[in-house]
Amino acid sequence: MSRIVIKNARILTMATEAPQILEGDIGIEGSCIREIGRIDAKMVGDDAVTVIDAAGKVVMPGLINCHNHAAMALFRGYSDDLRLMEWLSQKIWPAEERLDGDAVYAGTMLAAAEMIKSGTTTFADMYFFMDDVARAVRDAGMRATLCQGLLFIDNQAERRLEATRRLFADWHGKAEGRIKAMVGPHAPYTCPPDKLQAVMALAKELQAAIHIHLSETVEEVDQMFDRYGKSPVRYLADLGLFAEHHVLLAHAVNLSRDDIHLLKGLRGGVSHNPVSNLKLGCGVAPVLELRDKGVAVALGTDGAGSATTLDLFEEIKAAAWLQKNRTGDPTAVTAYQALRMATIEGARALGLADRIGSIEPGKQADLILIDMNKPHLFPQNDICALLAYAANGADVDTVLIDGKVVMQNRQLLTMHEADVLAEAAAAARRVIRD
Amino acid sequence: MSRIVIKNARILTMATEAPQILEGDIGIEGSCIREIGRIDAKMVGDDAVTVIDAAGKVVMPGLINCHNHAAMALFRGYSDDLRLMEWLSQKIWPAEERLDGDAVYAGTMLAAAEMIKSGTTTFADMYFFMDDVARAVRDAGMRATLCQGLLFIDNQAERRLEATRRLFADWHGKAEGRIKAMVGPHAPYTCPPDKLQAVMALAKELQAAIHIHLSETVEEVDQMFDRYGKSPVRYLADLGLFAEHHVLLAHAVNLSRDDIHLLKGLRGGVSHNPVSNLKLGCGVAPVLELRDKGVAVALGTDGAGSATTLDLFEEIKAAAWLQKNRTGDPTAVTAYQALRMATIEGARALGLADRIGSIEPGKQADLILIDMNKPHLFPQNDICALLAYAANGADVDTVLIDGKVVMQNRQLLTMHEADVLAEAAAAARRVIRD
Repeated sequence: MSRIVIKNARILTMATEAPQILEGDIGIEGSCIREIGRIDAKMVGDDAVTVIDAAGKVVMPGLINCHNHAAMALFRGYSDDLRLMEWLSQKIWPAEERLDGDAVYAGTMLAAAEMIKSGTTTFADMYFFMDDVARAVRDAGMRATLCQGLLFIDNQAERRLEATRRLFADWHGKAEGRIKAMVGPHAPYTCPPDKLQAVMALAKELQAAIHIHLSETVEEVDQMFDRYGKSPVRYLADLGLFAEHHVLLAHAVNLSRDDIHLLKGLRGGVSHNPVSNLKLGCGVAPVLELRDKGVAVALGTDGAGSATTLDLFEEIKAAAWLQKNRTGDPTAVTAYQALRMATIEGARALGLADRIGSIEPGKQADLILIDMNKPHLFPQNDICALLAYAANGADVDTVLIDGKVVMQNRQLLTMHEADVLAEAAAAARRVIRD
Repeated sequence: MSRIVIKNARILTMATEAPQILEGDIGIEGSCIREIGRIDAKMVGDDAVTVIDAAGKVVMPGLINCHNHAAMALFRGYSDDLRLMEWLSQKIWPAEERLDGDAVYAGTMLAAAEMIKSGTTTFADMYFFMDDVARAVRDAGMRATLCQGLLFIDNQAERRLEATRRLFADWHGKAEGRIKAMVGPHAPYTCPPDKLQAVMALAKELQAAIHIHLSETVEEVDQMFDRYGKSPVRYLADLGLFAEHHVLLAHAVNLSRDDIHLLKGLRGGVSHNPVSNLKLGCGVAPVLELRDKGVAVALGTDGAGSATTLDLFEEIKAAAWLQKNRTGDPTAVTAYQALRMATIEGARALGLADRIGSIEPGKQADLILIDMNKPHLFPQNDICALLAYAANGADVDTVLIDGKVVMQNRQLLTMHEADVLAEAAAAARRVIRD
């Protein structure tokens, strides 16, 4: 069993309600954190033990991106500054028509390279060609929850449900346990009641969590009222979704007070994606109100086709800024609370809080080392404020996932970065024709 | 006269209304850009010419930060997540009481290190101990417009005006012409009419531009109505400020439609500081409406005491995101328009548009080289979108100011970075007592 000791660290554990910063070492055996403190000389002296010196660095849990369409990294910068329907109909859909498994693999590897280099160790993905997404997750050494996006807008429902069964059979629990499959009904407005019931039955059969878009735009809320006389949240609640399933809700921007009450005590959580919401002009989610109702509010980027970057440090900043501004109260969402959204709250939303999201003995060793020796991280009056409001992805120096070092001194160890960039550029040229 | 050739560049000139990207070389003589195109072999072959290879990089004008209190970098992370008055009265003012010239020099050098490393070449500063700020600007090799903050809240008015005269005598046009002095009445609510008239008379005598805070919070607008029966903008307009002076207005968040009309055709410009405004819960400035009235809207960070970071790429992102979200229109403030705010519009706001803000023969050689060979900047479907929405300060590889290379391959050449960090940390320990 591999053994790693991270020495001389300042450790932001994220394990407590208030910030806890320990000074010491972290001992890792196999994929797990074994102990935190002063690791004895015997273990460090052992040649079989890899020692990582973290002097001048802060160690924190790997960041968790709860809503992504990773392969859309191919569309980065391709179609910005457009209205949503123009973006979809003239740009994204035609390009997606030309996607194949190889392109999705290349796009997901590009996204994985970016995510690791900016400190993300786990992501929740919803897309197509999920076998190729899973291969990329395995090869990159990341942790992920994956689902096939299920849109019931034609007669392909059975084929799509079948793809989800296949994803479970092939990938659930695979890649040393780093991959978890979910069931992914796309959104209330693309899933009529009978289809959603079939999806929920499948989720029960597979004992799987559900990942779904919810109330991203005012237009889709209006559409649900026109069609069913109720809000998207009420629609899902009436079908029994919240009562019987672990649910990951993406966006949740345009919620009424009634909606927020219906989500009280939600099993699962909400992925708040502030940058994508701003860029598409969707609004600002009621994060404070959801938290007041005991809902885990995590962070996601959405695909790089809309958000442009998958750097979760941007979402951490934006999440705190926007709630402060929305309420006029600078104490709303503190630096530490924003960091929790990107770590332990993300783990809760994915149903992985017993395994990741904080630095504690027994948890998986998903860790990032942040180099604090930089002008924008000086002086060090408050580590949490610096990490939340000044750090960015480029400050991440070293990344461990599942006890394996996947980046050291900003060098990716699970892939050849130049090849990944070249292959992504070639795939983008194939699928983008204008 | 020193000569530099930047070879093989993709050059985003920022000189035109629509994006213009040239491929070629940039020839620099002394402090100025001499030509753009294919530089002849003779010049490149000359041993006295320094050649910088920009293959894989984009060259753009250095970024311009139009509102800063640079030395407040000492207070970075010291007092986040607090209400404005608590922040000022319990944290910032007591610490500022303990500031001296050495601490301000150390803090300004720290800010300069951060600004250069994130691509800022020019900044507008308002603070105290401006002789020490000017020394730091000179030593760091930056370009700056400097003013002493003039608050008339005691009987020190004459002394404060005298400090401004001294700043002009000692520093205006100095440091190879990189320093320009301004007159800095702090804000309408700290400058009664007779004092503001004295300040304006001084500005006329010195032929100087005026830098002033304006309508940052709702509270100060209310206070002006209570005191004078008019808005801060109307107060300044009635005193003749806009008719007779080049004015740099910081913040301009809480403006009425009347206010916006009064600012029509403003000589000077507005420094929009979106990150600071969000973090303090002040609101979102009406950037689109101001631009419709012909006002140059530039970007600033405000001090790192509130904004935490001086990375202008954060302000570029936030400026675009917030107008899109405020209007629900994703086409509002495009990537290129946001980049213009950080370059040529900044130059206009500072009265330096004939010298900086775009890459054109005859302008000062204030240039930044951005390394595009990174996962988050791939594929390169649209350079402007990548620079505005995905890049951050850490992507800046090389910086020239006034024809001198001040950073190359992320190594600062005008200062010893480790010493600057250590001295700033020591100064922060002296002035921060809790």
